[in-house]
Amino acid sequence: MSDSCKMLSLGEVCDFLKNHNDYLILTHASPDGDTLGSGFGLMRVLENLGKKAKVFCPDGVPEKFEYLVKTSQEDFKEKTIIAVDLADPKLLGAACEQYADKVELCIDHHISNIKYSKSLYLDANSAAASEIIYTIAVALGVKINKEMANALYTGIATDTGCFKFSNTTAKTHSITAKLFEVGVDATKINHAMFETISRERLNIEHLALDSIDFRYGGKCAIISISAEMIEKTKCDKSDLEGITSIARTIEGVVVGITLRENQMGKVKASVRTHDPIDACAICNNLGGGGHFRASGCEIVGDIDHAKQEILKYVEIALKDSNLI
Amino acid sequence: MSDSCKMLSLGEVCDFLKNHNDYLILTHASPDGDTLGSGFGLMRVLENLGKKAKVFCPDGVPEKFEYLVKTSQEDFKEKTIIAVDLADPKLLGAACEQYADKVELCIDHHISNIKYSKSLYLDANSAAASEIIYTIAVALGVKINKEMANALYTGIATDTGCFKFSNTTAKTHSITAKLFEVGVDATKINHAMFETISRERLNIEHLALDSIDFRYGGKCAIISISAEMIEKTKCDKSDLEGITSIARTIEGVVVGITLRENQMGKVKASVRTHDPIDACAICNNLGGGGHFRASGCEIVGDIDHAKQEILKYVEIALKDSNLI
Repeated sequence: MSDSCKMLSLGEVCDFLKNHNDYLILTHASPDGDTLGSGFGLMRVLENLGKKAKVFCPDGVPEKFEYLVKTSQEDFKEKTIIAVDLADPKLLGAACEQYADKVELCIDHHISNIKYSKSLYLDANSAAASEIIYTIAVALGVKINKEMANALYTGIATDTGCFKFSNTTAKTHSITAKLFEVGVDATKINHAMFETISRERLNIEHLALDSIDFRYGGKCAIISISAEMIEKTKCDKSDLEGITSIARTIEGVVVGITLRENQMGKVKASVRTHDPIDACAICNNLGGGGHFRASGCEIVGDIDHAKQEILKYVEIALKDSNLI
Repeated sequence: MSDSCKMLSLGEVCDFLKNHNDYLILTHASPDGDTLGSGFGLMRVLENLGKKAKVFCPDGVPEKFEYLVKTSQEDFKEKTIIAVDLADPKLLGAACEQYADKVELCIDHHISNIKYSKSLYLDANSAAASEIIYTIAVALGVKINKEMANALYTGIATDTGCFKFSNTTAKTHSITAKLFEVGVDATKINHAMFETISRERLNIEHLALDSIDFRYGGKCAIISISAEMIEKTKCDKSDLEGITSIARTIEGVVVGITLRENQMGKVKASVRTHDPIDACAICNNLGGGGHFRASGCEIVGDIDHAKQEILKYVEIALKDSNLI
């Protein structure tokens, strides 16, 4: 596929958006704030250009992001398919087959993008796809309004852990300053994203803390979440999201791993690291990938087996960096 | 005192700093990131003007802020005393008597500043005193360097909860963008301030979650921390700090209470509320007080007794607001 993917410049992506019509914007499954923020942000930018645009999220829009959705929207037959924040069509989940080879343009910030779309605007220096949408909007001469700001802020704030992660740049803050100038509901969004814990999340976090296993003198911490724990606490995907960051936050930990058993005999490993450990390299060994400090992979088998497998590569990484 | 306090404009505060020499900069006791960040930031700005300046922190500089301190600094006899982020000389703690009536200039962002200093530059619209120091530095024509950026970023990030709190503005983000442009060590600072949980804190949090008691259909959550729990986990003041915010973050909770038993037969209650409940009114009934959404009081007796006592007033507040 990669041979036929045309890499676009900012000018070219603007021309593309001006010259096409009736957009369907795809987000990835298990949607997070950035895929939804960039999707709904782009939708509003396109509407501002006088185009029709709608967002398709394979798993639907989770309740806590419902403020991004337009309450009344006319339906139409799509002509042009765009994907945002979608590095690989597999991340469309069940909708992969339907759309994998139909994406005309992908707008993404993942360096790992597999170039599946006909054209691609990639800016791996952006902390969030929503930052790229902001840049495109400005290049298109679109005036940012409050609804766009709320969407783009959601993407930027969630993908940077509210400006805490190392992907945050001068550009991130300077774009955010502009979003504040048009009245973004930052307090409300921050409250919903970062200061509200569901009872289910609280319960799964409690069980997760029970499971912590420290290795290599506390340099690696592993949290294990069994299918039974998920069932017992009735927690959903979004409740589980925040759990993956806990292990790395513990003092002295440089590799934080969360292992989550699913119903299909597989374990999803989320790996979060501190310098100098490359989380992506660890996950690459097991067929996964992602970012330098945040990556993931799937391992067939139970949690104990997954732990054994991934620890092999953690050990190598720690040794290579002279940390053990 | 207030009669003799001269309110300065930005131009006047710049003139003051240019026209005086040999500065001692006072921070408040129990120092946080903003009093230290604005203090050490201002010290470096003054040095850049060719002045001598040193910072005095009544309680010393906590280990996690040690990166702000200059490793080698010549001592000198101070001529001019400035205070930063210090709304009331009482907040100097043991050093109050020595300095209370000797502060020539106070630079602050607290609207509650009691105007104890000879002159005051107050900007209550700044999220942090460190934002004000940035503005002063720029007005003085001082080029912001990395050391200043690290100090000012520390203040801004900590006083805004890493850009999460409602005091964050467009100016906050736009100043921060400038600090990134000169290479602020944001990742390192964020890691130390927001992404590091001590093992002790982790353990006390785990026990705290065990103790959660939901009342009034989940509208009130009470966390109880016994003296035994504190002893067992060896946690200190700073480990306990974050615990008080947990109860209120739970979905549906409008009154979050943390009860902490001390060794002297008393229980310290920290009350955190969401609109429309007034935490201060609840605590006033028990001889305490504070802010509308964050207050505290001390109750003689054990945790069970304290819980009974405070719940009387929580019930009244919830009923008065028609929440139960």
